[in-house]
Amino acid sequence: MGHHGNEFRLATKAPDRAVSSAQPEPAPGLKVARTRGSSRSVERGLVRRMLGALGRPPIEVELWDGALIVGSASASPVARVTIHRRSTLWRLVARPMLHFGDAYSAGELDVRGDLIGLLEVIYRHREAASVPPSRGRLGLSRLASRARSNTLRGSRANIHAHYDIGNDFYQLWLDRDLVYTCAYFPTPELSLEDAQFAKMELVCRKLRLKPGEAVVEAGCGWGALALHMAKHHGIYVKAYNISHEQITFARERARREELDDRVEFIEDDYRRARGRFDVFVSVGMLEHVGPDHYRELGATIDRCLTPDGRGLLHSIGQDYPAELNPWIRRRIFPGAYPPSLREMLGVLEPWKFTVLDVENLRQHYALTLRHWLERFESTREQTRGMFDERFVRMWRLYLSGSIAAFDSGALQLFQVLFNRHGLRDVPWTRAEFHIG
Amino acid sequence: MGHHGNEFRLATKAPDRAVSSAQPEPAPGLKVARTRGSSRSVERGLVRRMLGALGRPPIEVELWDGALIVGSASASPVARVTIHRRSTLWRLVARPMLHFGDAYSAGELDVRGDLIGLLEVIYRHREAASVPPSRGRLGLSRLASRARSNTLRGSRANIHAHYDIGNDFYQLWLDRDLVYTCAYFPTPELSLEDAQFAKMELVCRKLRLKPGEAVVEAGCGWGALALHMAKHHGIYVKAYNISHEQITFARERARREELDDRVEFIEDDYRRARGRFDVFVSVGMLEHVGPDHYRELGATIDRCLTPDGRGLLHSIGQDYPAELNPWIRRRIFPGAYPPSLREMLGVLEPWKFTVLDVENLRQHYALTLRHWLERFESTREQTRGMFDERFVRMWRLYLSGSIAAFDSGALQLFQVLFNRHGLRDVPWTRAEFHIG
Repeated sequence: MGHHGNEFRLATKAPDRAVSSAQPEPAPGLKVARTRGSSRSVERGLVRRMLGALGRPPIEVELWDGALIVGSASASPVARVTIHRRSTLWRLVARPMLHFGDAYSAGELDVRGDLIGLLEVIYRHREAASVPPSRGRLGLSRLASRARSNTLRGSRANIHAHYDIGNDFYQLWLDRDLVYTCAYFPTPELSLEDAQFAKMELVCRKLRLKPGEAVVEAGCGWGALALHMAKHHGIYVKAYNISHEQITFARERARREELDDRVEFIEDDYRRARGRFDVFVSVGMLEHVGPDHYRELGATIDRCLTPDGRGLLHSIGQDYPAELNPWIRRRIFPGAYPPSLREMLGVLEPWKFTVLDVENLRQHYALTLRHWLERFESTREQTRGMFDERFVRMWRLYLSGSIAAFDSGALQLFQVLFNRHGLRDVPWTRAEFHIG
Repeated sequence: MGHHGNEFRLATKAPDRAVSSAQPEPAPGLKVARTRGSSRSVERGLVRRMLGALGRPPIEVELWDGALIVGSASASPVARVTIHRRSTLWRLVARPMLHFGDAYSAGELDVRGDLIGLLEVIYRHREAASVPPSRGRLGLSRLASRARSNTLRGSRANIHAHYDIGNDFYQLWLDRDLVYTCAYFPTPELSLEDAQFAKMELVCRKLRLKPGEAVVEAGCGWGALALHMAKHHGIYVKAYNISHEQITFARERARREELDDRVEFIEDDYRRARGRFDVFVSVGMLEHVGPDHYRELGATIDRCLTPDGRGLLHSIGQDYPAELNPWIRRRIFPGAYPPSLREMLGVLEPWKFTVLDVENLRQHYALTLRHWLERFESTREQTRGMFDERFVRMWRLYLSGSIAAFDSGALQLFQVLFNRHGLRDVPWTRAEFHIG
């Protein structure tokens, strides 16, 4: 199996030769006061200890005085991390997962070579060393992030923080339909546009949409799937989203495409959905719901579906319960939690839904993200103009880290197809919804 | 969707006209002393109450004196249940799910018309009326069946009770390879033989078997899948089973087909599996493991798999945790429990396995069972000769009830494909293992 998306390897890929020969990465506009004076032996020792704890990966760490600490003497390094300030090193020692991201964004730390490769090394190691957390430990950790809880009000703040930063920005690097979820590539060579279309078709075929049916969508982004269902399958859609910017854009698009008689975009929480529908669909919202609210979500689905209703949940997930990377959770997706498949089924089981089919699209998300990162890098000057260099670096790290997470298996992507218990009319085999 | 296997409707299907015109079912060899004298009004009242509790289904109940109680005045009846003895009625009132089966087997009660339809009415009603049991209630119920627990010794007794009753008997009505698990019908018209072959191929393709690889199979039945993997995919198999009759048969077949250098049949418990394998597979054993032992099973899989290992669990399941029908659990499958998909994932999650794919083959099991029942009925004279009429009636009820359970959705069939966490070499899409 050679389909690991190597065709899409980006410029951040490490050169075959030693990293030390690579050019330093430019960080225009970020003025970082670098520490003068020599590193102390205790500081070099700390770096050696961190690299040891990571299993001696093929990484080099350079300190502010040029001191170089090599993770692995045998393997050629994938990347060199340069730490420009003493205070950064000490913060990194205290909470590496959180402060690596902050220091990188601030330019207190630079990476030359293969950024994704570096992050994958870190993810894979963390996985190998960790044991699944006990319920107790995870519970405490969740308690600590209570401030980020996904109540009606908390969700609004959490979603606003990520999705309302400007449609112009997302238009720079998403596909033309602004689909900000995992695409489906029947073959890896497909364009991002075609792969997002294929994903929407896959969802529609799994749900076996019939013209004239009514669908409720929870968390509709910029409206691409809702409009696709209306346009290509003759469906009536009520689509909920609490992001003001997204809903405004989606409504405008519905009017422009003359689909506003069939698609209603509602700026409200999924929990307030009203009416009865043939189909419930949610693509990329469950990550923002949080396990404490799965019962509410299940109750909403149960309330909204007709007696012969069906549905699909599409969500980033994990192989076992574990908190999201703390930097991502704090700086990128407040309140987010990717469930294990077992946890995800907690939405459906109390309401006796039948699980018809589960597909894991992990590799498709890694490839989707490679497309996004490539487009993001090619338009970074415009992003810098809209925001600043810190923002550019933060988003580069977030997209690269997400590729590393899906490549390493730290994250998964589950599509769960379900219907009411005991239905007679279900697909005989998958041939009915296969694509590609 | 017309693929509900109606093509395979058996002779037990109700006639279009009223059931009362049907011939009484013969029960040769069973001498049931019928109650003389009239039924009392309290007894007829009890029947009306039972029918009311079932939601007034289209069923007729006839008492020993010819008194007829009609469940539904409007719908034409699917079946007539004739109760020959007063004592039977009172036992039925006390524990209907258990005593219906016992009374039917003993000939104290007869069914004319559509036996499967009758049982499906009962299953569907039970479903509609029940709420998922709380963990506490289910726990108590499990405690009560502790005598049936699946310890090393308990499992041996439980398995012996069902699988060691004679290979000759199973040869009467299973396919030529003696595959006693759900088949896979790419189209419903396929023969049972072809559908069992297709199922084994589906399992092999999902696991992406490569010649020379080593597979451990837990619960191998009469050895069909192990021999299939060796013969058609060049695999080395160690197959475990605690049924003495089955292992003896499988070994003989391996010798006859000259595959005994590649397939080793071991009469021992899956928990004692030793060695390292590329693949773990278990088809139709998890039902006999019991949730109390899922951690042990997971530990066994984890211990047996190489670092890039993969596996498949195929099991009867349910939409939510609930005890198996009490008559089936007592008389047919002691110690059995069909898990919900969520419970099933409890085998895999603690060991961080990645779930790649879940397929629900519920309708395929209903169709498989229709084939078995048809063959069973056509050879029932031989079965009666090997055992007795009570046995024939017991097995007719078990097979018919299983069809009703899969038709109604009371039972599901889950195939769960998994591999080690973080593997790079996984299928890009399902096209790699699609059949049909």
